[in-house]
Amino acid sequence: MSEKLTEAVDLSHHISDLAKARQPSPLKSLSKYVGTPGLITLAGGMPHPDYFPFADIGANALAHDSYSADEVQRASGFSWIWSLFGAKPKTIQLTVPKYPTTPDQVNLAVALQYGQAIGLPQLQAFIKEFSTKVYSPAYSNWTNLIHTGNTDGLTRAFLTLLNPGDVLLTEEWTYPSALASAQPIGCKAVPVAMDGQGMKSDALEKILSEWDEQGRGAKRPRVMYTIPIGQNPGGTTMSISRKQEIYDLCVKYGQSATLFITSNTETQSELDVIIVEDDPYYFLQMKEYKLQSERATASSSKHDGAEFIASLAPTYLKIDVQGRVIRLDTFSKTIAPGSRLGFFTCNPLFAERLERQGETSTQAPCGFGQSLITQLLTTWGYEGYVRWLHGLAIQYEIRRNYLLDSLSEEFHMRKSLGTKGVWEGLEIFEAYAKPDGSEKFGYGNKLFSIVPPTSGMFLWIKLHFDDIPRFQPGDEETLEMQLFAKFATAGVLVAPGWFFAADGVNPPEPGAGHFRVAFSNADLITFKKAVTIFGEVIRDFHKQ
Amino acid sequence: MSEKLTEAVDLSHHISDLAKARQPSPLKSLSKYVGTPGLITLAGGMPHPDYFPFADIGANALAHDSYSADEVQRASGFSWIWSLFGAKPKTIQLTVPKYPTTPDQVNLAVALQYGQAIGLPQLQAFIKEFSTKVYSPAYSNWTNLIHTGNTDGLTRAFLTLLNPGDVLLTEEWTYPSALASAQPIGCKAVPVAMDGQGMKSDALEKILSEWDEQGRGAKRPRVMYTIPIGQNPGGTTMSISRKQEIYDLCVKYGQSATLFITSNTETQSELDVIIVEDDPYYFLQMKEYKLQSERATASSSKHDGAEFIASLAPTYLKIDVQGRVIRLDTFSKTIAPGSRLGFFTCNPLFAERLERQGETSTQAPCGFGQSLITQLLTTWGYEGYVRWLHGLAIQYEIRRNYLLDSLSEEFHMRKSLGTKGVWEGLEIFEAYAKPDGSEKFGYGNKLFSIVPPTSGMFLWIKLHFDDIPRFQPGDEETLEMQLFAKFATAGVLVAPGWFFAADGVNPPEPGAGHFRVAFSNADLITFKKAVTIFGEVIRDFHKQ
Repeated sequence: MSEKLTEAVDLSHHISDLAKARQPSPLKSLSKYVGTPGLITLAGGMPHPDYFPFADIGANALAHDSYSADEVQRASGFSWIWSLFGAKPKTIQLTVPKYPTTPDQVNLAVALQYGQAIGLPQLQAFIKEFSTKVYSPAYSNWTNLIHTGNTDGLTRAFLTLLNPGDVLLTEEWTYPSALASAQPIGCKAVPVAMDGQGMKSDALEKILSEWDEQGRGAKRPRVMYTIPIGQNPGGTTMSISRKQEIYDLCVKYGQSATLFITSNTETQSELDVIIVEDDPYYFLQMKEYKLQSERATASSSKHDGAEFIASLAPTYLKIDVQGRVIRLDTFSKTIAPGSRLGFFTCNPLFAERLERQGETSTQAPCGFGQSLITQLLTTWGYEGYVRWLHGLAIQYEIRRNYLLDSLSEEFHMRKSLGTKGVWEGLEIFEAYAKPDGSEKFGYGNKLFSIVPPTSGMFLWIKLHFDDIPRFQPGDEETLEMQLFAKFATAGVLVAPGWFFAADGVNPPEPGAGHFRVAFSNADLITFKKAVTIFGEVIRDFHKQ
Repeated sequence: MSEKLTEAVDLSHHISDLAKARQPSPLKSLSKYVGTPGLITLAGGMPHPDYFPFADIGANALAHDSYSADEVQRASGFSWIWSLFGAKPKTIQLTVPKYPTTPDQVNLAVALQYGQAIGLPQLQAFIKEFSTKVYSPAYSNWTNLIHTGNTDGLTRAFLTLLNPGDVLLTEEWTYPSALASAQPIGCKAVPVAMDGQGMKSDALEKILSEWDEQGRGAKRPRVMYTIPIGQNPGGTTMSISRKQEIYDLCVKYGQSATLFITSNTETQSELDVIIVEDDPYYFLQMKEYKLQSERATASSSKHDGAEFIASLAPTYLKIDVQGRVIRLDTFSKTIAPGSRLGFFTCNPLFAERLERQGETSTQAPCGFGQSLITQLLTTWGYEGYVRWLHGLAIQYEIRRNYLLDSLSEEFHMRKSLGTKGVWEGLEIFEAYAKPDGSEKFGYGNKLFSIVPPTSGMFLWIKLHFDDIPRFQPGDEETLEMQLFAKFATAGVLVAPGWFFAADGVNPPEPGAGHFRVAFSNADLITFKKAVTIFGEVIRDFHKQ
């Protein structure tokens, strides 16, 4: 791949049969002629841009510093700018003309025409600069390729790497739509146990080292799907050292395992584990949660872009010396889900196949969205976008804090140190009913426990059923759904834990159920109300 | 399906194994709660719209009557409005606010959020009205579903209907990207011979009636891919009577063939042929071409929307009493390719599977594009959009006329009546070199021939090689590529015919090669120049 690669890895064997069969359009073969000065092109079926019924498009966009990046914001539960609704935001005016007067301007006639499957040149340049500065990939000839959002990107990655019947290594709790993309091609998840950082490396090694094709009924895993930051649903953040451990295992169970198993070169390559890094929440990393009473008022420190980027846990790209990572970024969480725009960062071999895959499905992302987002990003500039991301990260931290503060007011929270299982070594917040006139069992049953999320949009709540007198082992999923239904009937919808079980069955955890609660969307009053309802319903549930 | 269906057809057996395996996201199961007044939703990972950095988006759009729909335009080669570039077009201002003040306005906060896989309600309503008025489908419970352009739509349709190894009935010359979508799943095209209306029904019946699974090495065809209007590359227009013949065969080789073959119900259903109607050029239908000298100056007739719609060849939907048609419309040719927006019209059973397919790939089309296009369409209104389409159709007719007029000036054109093969019964224009000082063989070799296209964007040129002294039978593809290369070197790029051969090999036509020339994009001077170069190159090619 590059002179920086430490090992010569032949990645071509990772391409799935389906992806191998994809041909470029015959019109591609004409590309050697295109660009010849004065060449008249009557080959493609492109409408004249005069027939695009838009003279220009534009927007009033928010300023990059619309949300405070002042550190003091983090400490306060009240002084944040939560909603701009009602207030008049500071805006900048964007315009994308169909026929701009200078060649470097974003050009609507180009954005709305066929043939931009790799994206507008200005967007490509921005993404390249951004990836270089923020991710510092470990080899030099990595490349970017735009896609129409991570769900599209994931499906393309799976179709590029997985053959029917292959398995997919995932966290034991994961994003169901990712599995839904792989499942029609007959690919099942192999869940790997998690802890407070997400996927556990010792659990992964156990699976890879003890893999038995007969016993498992499937070939060795060749692909891993992981959400290392703001893990969905767990809310965990994976450090670079854990990533390094996992990466090394993905290499080890390629190269060295084959020394024992076979000397056949093809099999050797097929054993490598390719990492699909789905990282939509990367920029929503937060400081550790402290109870409001324990929170120090931070000194007023101003935004520093380099410092903010350096504070983020590095990605798999930083350690990917072999080009075995396909990273997926999306603008869904940093601009808007309706952008349907994101990008791969990966080696050029995979990128070429992913591009072919795109040509026969989504083609280029929408030209309206591409040009408005490109205009916004290039107007803000790299520094401006980093400033926007910093402001956004603090907003999510404030939201998380507010939700957890509200829970601490509604329940009696005891801190304890996890001694076993998923939360070993972590500070856990265990919730009990507060004593009051109507509650006879204050400080009685442990109702639920949480480890405050350190990134992303979700609080993962572990529900405790084992103190409920009627509980019998095996009732966990039933009770989870009963409680979910009571909660929904009372007016609050959360996501039941079983939705996120990688193989459709909850990982065994006696006496426990789970809810995933999003703190990304609701407003102040709504959160308070939801927590009050949650308190009433769960206390009542434990009394029945 | 509906009380209007003439036969009770069970279409469920048409769903491919892959499509059957697609599950809705578990979050869908929460939808029964959503919509409850006052329900607080903390289930989905939706960012708060305040974090979308756009306060509003907007556009200066062209007026619906920017292009003349006056019939007199058709006759003249010179008085048309070709390009608006340079002139100031008449525009209307569109704005889509993030937080509109009334609920019926297009809402950017909704357009940019997750959860609109079926599209903005205002767009759905527009498409429903449009399909009802323009297509009048033959059964009542048909439905629309938006997709991100016909390439996405086709891929979804193929994955919904085709199992690996299935074959696909197509015109013998067809759109290569459609085949590229089907080919990775191992589906090959079965070319059906064409004439001046596109696919021939007698050729189709021969294939279906004589199908021999052993001999063909594949199961009976269950799916047809067809471009009935503005056929790509042929430029042909299929009448409703031809469509009826083809439709009847698709029914016949479902229901009645099974009476002889098997009484097994499953097999019976699997034999039905489902029609995938790819119709991007539907609104670019033109009047028959006449030489400039023979063109009558039409009386000045004004636009009448109902008359314009009535003048268009009806679609397969009009005769689809059984719900066996998946029609694909796109805004790529009527708004802009970069819209990446179009829609299916089909039965609800297929629509549900196509929607699931979309959820794990593109999700909803881009919210920026959706909202701007919706705002444009609803501002123009149904009548305004029809007026826009009429103006556009006339533009393409004028472009076609101009290209053919230029060819008539460059070459000596002889009209003849086709007596055999593809062009039997049609008026053919045969081109010979004009005699002049430098040309010794004026009126010598027949250089090429055309049947003027009646819809779409393309002129399909048949090249004649059999009069070239060095020609040997079997040289057709070689000479086609030689001529193509000379043409490209001289500065004009066209698409060589073999690109469009449905099974990768040109249908046998002794002595003939083909070029596809797009008249959709170039401007006046460019066309003239291209035709002059074409003349020089092809005359020279015949002299060598």
